[in-house]
Amino acid sequence: MSNYFEDVPLGMTVELGQTTFTREDILAFAGKWDPQPFHLDEEAAKKSLFGGLCASGWHTAAMWLRHNIDHRNRINSQITYRGGKLAKWGPSPGFEKIRWLKPVLVGDTIRYTQRVKEKIESKSRPTLGLVVADNEGHNQNGELVFAVVSKIFVERRNPGPPVKKD
Amino acid sequence: MSNYFEDVPLGMTVELGQTTFTREDILAFAGKWDPQPFHLDEEAAKKSLFGGLCASGWHTAAMWLRHNIDHRNRINSQITYRGGKLAKWGPSPGFEKIRWLKPVLVGDTIRYTQRVKEKIESKSRPTLGLVVADNEGHNQNGELVFAVVSKIFVERRNPGPPVKKD
Repeated sequence: MSNYFEDVPLGMTVELGQTTFTREDILAFAGKWDPQPFHLDEEAAKKSLFGGLCASGWHTAAMWLRHNIDHRNRINSQITYRGGKLAKWGPSPGFEKIRWLKPVLVGDTIRYTQRVKEKIESKSRPTLGLVVADNEGHNQNGELVFAVVSKIFVERRNPGPPVKKD
Repeated sequence: MSNYFEDVPLGMTVELGQTTFTREDILAFAGKWDPQPFHLDEEAAKKSLFGGLCASGWHTAAMWLRHNIDHRNRINSQITYRGGKLAKWGPSPGFEKIRWLKPVLVGDTIRYTQRVKEKIESKSRPTLGLVVADNEGHNQNGELVFAVVSKIFVERRNPGPPVKKD
């Protein structure tokens, strides 16, 4: 068991975890990062384009992030426990297409999944490969509420040829 | 002074605000949302692909969000103070191309700017228009460290023709 670029499974949908968004959590996140009336006040939210108090889209995204990292940390613990060596995971060149498809309302439970859809060996950084994944969040009614395409550089067990310098 | 879709200035670069990322803030954000060793531990960070303790990319993004909303709330306060009517701002169909171009290290000061690059009248929702903006964060050396393309629906003062239903 190992977590090098070569080991990352392609095309498999993985459950990352789920969270119920409480009123308190929605207010706390919005108060700190996204203080807009429809994330902070029931009456204002009713008059807004959302129609009710809803989580900041960035709260939904941050919760995905936490579940994603917790999932990765669980795998890393197992590797370490078995005496394996951890590959370096790290920088991201950027994420694509953050989508908020439906509001996340008080009491909604969002289930996050991830599916690696592409693995690209880096030519300019031969020790690394890029892992591209579709990440989704569905609510308790099975509706897609959140999506983002993640891209992360991961260390390769077998680096490619060194880059030629002119 | 008003903040309807028609009033949003196109092509003008706006200063949203700036923040110095302290060690405490970096650890607090990472501990809650992005618990990876290189965001939490100096020694682990030195051995990582980043080379030093750095802020979660989502921390840099969340700080952009806060400055963006604070900026908007300041404008809204002025409108309300002068007895003006606030337009509804709200849902986003999604954001594009989140980029983390350089690590944000302890003590870095990030200055956030925004430039509306496109205004699109919605055909399917004639009361709304879509405001598309380039958002950037530069560090104290003038280096671009963060970028994201935001898209927000904003109420129109003069709605378009109603959508024909077949």
